Amino acid sequence: MNRVALEQQIERKKSVLCVGLDPDYDKFPEGIPHSIEGLILFCKSIIEATAPYCVAYKPNLAFFECYGAEGLRAFEEVCKAVPKTHFLIADAKRGDIGNTSARYAKAFYETFGCDAITVAPYMGEDSVKPFVKDDKWVIVLGLTSNPGSKDFEQQKFEGGQLLWETVLLKCQEWASDEQMMFVTGATKADSFKRIRALAPTSFLLVPGIGAQGGDLEGVLENGLINGGGLLINSSRGILYKSKGTDFAEAAAEEAQRLQTIMASYL
Amino acid sequence: MNRVALEQQIERKKSVLCVGLDPDYDKFPEGIPHSIEGLILFCKSIIEATAPYCVAYKPNLAFFECYGAEGLRAFEEVCKAVPKTHFLIADAKRGDIGNTSARYAKAFYETFGCDAITVAPYMGEDSVKPFVKDDKWVIVLGLTSNPGSKDFEQQKFEGGQLLWETVLLKCQEWASDEQMMFVTGATKADSFKRIRALAPTSFLLVPGIGAQGGDLEGVLENGLINGGGLLINSSRGILYKSKGTDFAEAAAEEAQRLQTIMASYL
Repeated sequence: MNRVALEQQIERKKSVLCVGLDPDYDKFPEGIPHSIEGLILFCKSIIEATAPYCVAYKPNLAFFECYGAEGLRAFEEVCKAVPKTHFLIADAKRGDIGNTSARYAKAFYETFGCDAITVAPYMGEDSVKPFVKDDKWVIVLGLTSNPGSKDFEQQKFEGGQLLWETVLLKCQEWASDEQMMFVTGATKADSFKRIRALAPTSFLLVPGIGAQGGDLEGVLENGLINGGGLLINSSRGILYKSKGTDFAEAAAEEAQRLQTIMASYL
Repeated sequence: MNRVALEQQIERKKSVLCVGLDPDYDKFPEGIPHSIEGLILFCKSIIEATAPYCVAYKPNLAFFECYGAEGLRAFEEVCKAVPKTHFLIADAKRGDIGNTSARYAKAFYETFGCDAITVAPYMGEDSVKPFVKDDKWVIVLGLTSNPGSKDFEQQKFEGGQLLWETVLLKCQEWASDEQMMFVTGATKADSFKRIRALAPTSFLLVPGIGAQGGDLEGVLENGLINGGGLLINSSRGILYKSKGTDFAEAAAEEAQRLQTIMASYL
């Protein structure tokens, strides 16, 4: 999906909501079997219920890979269940030397048919560039939503730039804003003015609202640009809103609640 | 496999060789079908041929994931084919927020039965710590062998430390040298004195000899410590030494050639 198509979806839905798919047996609601088939059923039910309110889905590979080859088969099924109208992000946080990154790009863009993949920038240019393709998106980790972001991301280089700031600036030399986005966590809402100064036209994938306690309104106020420029993710806050058999309705309600807030800013 | 057992293997074999398994249809030798079954056959043949000369295997997940769920099934098969006497490294370069990293740890340590997994440190402590387990190993990217290592890894923080140096020092606060190793590329052989000053007792996983042009002797001279402390990887240089039906013999010969050089330093 290219930028124009993504922005049209945002305009049409009045939503920048991304639903994160982190299927966890231990949290499955009543009536969903703790099995690969249950996992697929759960994800499909969530997708069907929330599709009217979101523009993107973000399955998290770790929650599939932990079940081995069968888990990856479920990932394939879940990817197929995402409507073509929705932007599909493989939350995989890959990144390796050039010939290996090229394989990961092939895996996620071609084999699984995703629109985008999250990538860790640590290894630099030749680890990121193989993911740069027209009509596909590399989503580079910038400032993440977890406590550990202070250990390296928020350390200051000589000259005064933080590591995550350097990543945002440097990576924009390798791809256009129609090929690359950045992960910037909602738990750092007060950083969004600075983020926008460094990446004024880039789409930002924003995890951390809901279970991680991020600030939705703060992100919308400081992060939105013409056409949207944000994909705000909620995973656990939507998936596990109810532990009962009404889990899909509860997920839809929570997605709609977030979408309504988003609409008031769009 | 714990440190004592790994050091015993090194002592017994007079080898610190790790064989990287990057199975690539385009490079398969004569007689190996371009299929998942061919991929499994190729890897098993390489493992059988090289096992006397190496102490570790390092399958690279990208070369399996690009074939989807079937590729991950092949990864399972290849993991099972590695003898229990050999240290098994999932070269996966994962790393995410805590609950997600915990899933990846479960995937590679439990589901696939690997001894170790490579992890990108960008997201900091809570992305690395879930991989810290007794008798298992997290192998953190330090100074990698690719050109892009200059973009961020080799940038200098205020106070004078480079990012990769900071990673080596900081990460050692989170795990012992019986639970954590570092990736340090052989193409940076002149850095090994500095690496050893920062991580004097850690095992180092050293990619980049062979196809990437690293300096084997330089690494051995400056990297070896009591008990070994190195796992030196060669992938393409061994796997694709011959394109003919004698590929397994050629791989064994190349592995033995490297082992002989290693033995002269051990």
